[in-house]
Amino acid sequence: MRRISILGSTGSIGTQTLDVVRKNKKKFEVVAISANSSVDLLLQQIKEFKPKYVAVYDEISALKLKSMIPNDIKIEVLSGMEGLKAIAALDEIDVLLTAIVGMIGLVPTLTAIKNKKDIALANKETLVCAGDLVMSEAKKHNVKILPVDSEHSAIFQCLNGEQNKEIETIILTASGGPFRGKTKQDLLEVTKNQALKHPNWSMGRKISIDSSTLMNKGLEVIEAKWLFGVEHNQIDVVVHPQSIIHSMVQFVDSSVMAQLGCPDMRLPIQYALSYPNRTINDFERLDLAKIATLTFEKPNLETFPCLKIAYESLKMGGTYCAVLNSANEVLVNEFLEDKIGFYDIPYYIEKTLEAHNSIENPSLEDILEIDKWARSFVKNILTK
Amino acid sequence: MRRISILGSTGSIGTQTLDVVRKNKKKFEVVAISANSSVDLLLQQIKEFKPKYVAVYDEISALKLKSMIPNDIKIEVLSGMEGLKAIAALDEIDVLLTAIVGMIGLVPTLTAIKNKKDIALANKETLVCAGDLVMSEAKKHNVKILPVDSEHSAIFQCLNGEQNKEIETIILTASGGPFRGKTKQDLLEVTKNQALKHPNWSMGRKISIDSSTLMNKGLEVIEAKWLFGVEHNQIDVVVHPQSIIHSMVQFVDSSVMAQLGCPDMRLPIQYALSYPNRTINDFERLDLAKIATLTFEKPNLETFPCLKIAYESLKMGGTYCAVLNSANEVLVNEFLEDKIGFYDIPYYIEKTLEAHNSIENPSLEDILEIDKWARSFVKNILTK
Repeated sequence: MRRISILGSTGSIGTQTLDVVRKNKKKFEVVAISANSSVDLLLQQIKEFKPKYVAVYDEISALKLKSMIPNDIKIEVLSGMEGLKAIAALDEIDVLLTAIVGMIGLVPTLTAIKNKKDIALANKETLVCAGDLVMSEAKKHNVKILPVDSEHSAIFQCLNGEQNKEIETIILTASGGPFRGKTKQDLLEVTKNQALKHPNWSMGRKISIDSSTLMNKGLEVIEAKWLFGVEHNQIDVVVHPQSIIHSMVQFVDSSVMAQLGCPDMRLPIQYALSYPNRTINDFERLDLAKIATLTFEKPNLETFPCLKIAYESLKMGGTYCAVLNSANEVLVNEFLEDKIGFYDIPYYIEKTLEAHNSIENPSLEDILEIDKWARSFVKNILTK
Repeated sequence: MRRISILGSTGSIGTQTLDVVRKNKKKFEVVAISANSSVDLLLQQIKEFKPKYVAVYDEISALKLKSMIPNDIKIEVLSGMEGLKAIAALDEIDVLLTAIVGMIGLVPTLTAIKNKKDIALANKETLVCAGDLVMSEAKKHNVKILPVDSEHSAIFQCLNGEQNKEIETIILTASGGPFRGKTKQDLLEVTKNQALKHPNWSMGRKISIDSSTLMNKGLEVIEAKWLFGVEHNQIDVVVHPQSIIHSMVQFVDSSVMAQLGCPDMRLPIQYALSYPNRTINDFERLDLAKIATLTFEKPNLETFPCLKIAYESLKMGGTYCAVLNSANEVLVNEFLEDKIGFYDIPYYIEKTLEAHNSIENPSLEDILEIDKWARSFVKNILTK
């Protein structure tokens, strides 16, 4: 029995994680759940999965949830960052699944690692902002970082039984998002509703916008560097619109291993929770003869400058990737609120990166500090 | 240093094996080579690789080779089946690479296994005829059977770090051969020269004909059953004309692992010799964006009845697969000598299978006996 605490149980990954648990009650047990403020869904999840703990980041929502829980349900309601940290460090759990979106996942993740909990990592910002720190803490505490992203799960599966030193190139596949094949000129006036329509995956709003700019792939490149211990020039991106090959690893002998499947996030979630075993399920099986055609093309860095900026940030090191991520978080929000245009996202990210003073080997405090700085810098230039 | 004896060093796989050795002289050493009768090429190989032993199956060719070897080269020249057996069992070797074509590879392979030599297996007939026997001997003597076929090497790589009990389906890819897309009507008058033109792989004559009938894929299905311990209904074939995905494994959780690469037999050869490590090389790297499109379709069992017959033989068990293989060997030869037509191959195989009395759990003697019977049965019906 694998005992799980979920950071972000009401989002897209969180609800799919609960579906995996629902289908495997003999293998998985949910001990704690959490959300920012979606108390109605939290209450429903509490009734179904009977966790011992729930953490609500927003204090007022926490109070509201407390009042909503029927008397016959015994559960501890926690709140704020302290609440998230508490459910990340519980004695009663084996693994923390971090499905929270954004930089906010970093501190609870580090707390879990220090308490020797394996991490099922769906929060990519954690490694983007603090990859070096998180991976060295994981190594120090002998904790596994199990990727939940479909791409990193694919790479992780390709590395089963292999030696990381024999990796030549990691090949991340990208669907290309809703704007594949478009020129920059085509996209100047694009709206959030157009950007939110992902062709293959059903995902949250932040990640959908990141997919439309290819920043999502850029963040994944950065994440891959830390997860698999390779250099930036060992990571390639190939656009593969059908999203059937989830990613690949080319080894030093020219052999390429790939992981394929129908697009279903429950598979990487289940794999992270089952690792090193696999769990039988009824997910749709791949039928390549039916799919008939898989295609591949190079990403267009002119239409999608965010991918290029991510590579450059990774190459620069220091706190570049943290700033990249923080600026992007703010700007995606602004775009979702119709306050800025599509190409304002890369434009202002570059402005922020140019303005920042990078710190080599940043501590957690440095990263939290630079995150604050980047957010306020972006907001300032936007209001000017 | 991996010390190698090669059964069939002058054929397609044999010469490519020597090319792998040529490029990795610090890792691989050729201790013994062998061929049926190609003495000129053997002499050239002796001069370059300086093996300690050479075995020539044909006795007269052995004498001829002996007379050709310069006095300053110290080498032991062996002959006949005893010669093949001797170089399979040498104290000085770690691995026997069996690249000999046909049923003749069986006895030396079993000899090597009994002498605790790992087997790099390119001779698929060995497992087709005597899969149960060979695998149980390998288990008994704690010997690795390392597949050299590109498809089985792919599956073997997909199973790295995995558990065989978690295999749901093995998906063998097939190029479809030179006659993909044709109807039976189109192929009634086909010549050996048309059949010998394989679209992607450069191979020997027997295997090229087997590829044109899809019997090659049928033999691979049978081989896969024994190599990976699955049932006949757990093996699928999908036609993939580009031969980039060399095969796949679908696991019980719906995840599919695949091995990809440019078509180059030296990769599976090198992998079998390097396993569990990988060896750096300069083989062409896969560029999926350049290839752009991979396609998949179902095999046409009406145009290619040999594949269907192979599945049926595997399902029947006993000595069906041995008879299938022996009859096919004779019939392919007859086709190569322009004595029979393309569809006479499956026709007479079925006749032979129908006429034979299957033996359950056959011994080596049973298999050798039924092989003789099948060959003479086919020859008899052809001369009637």
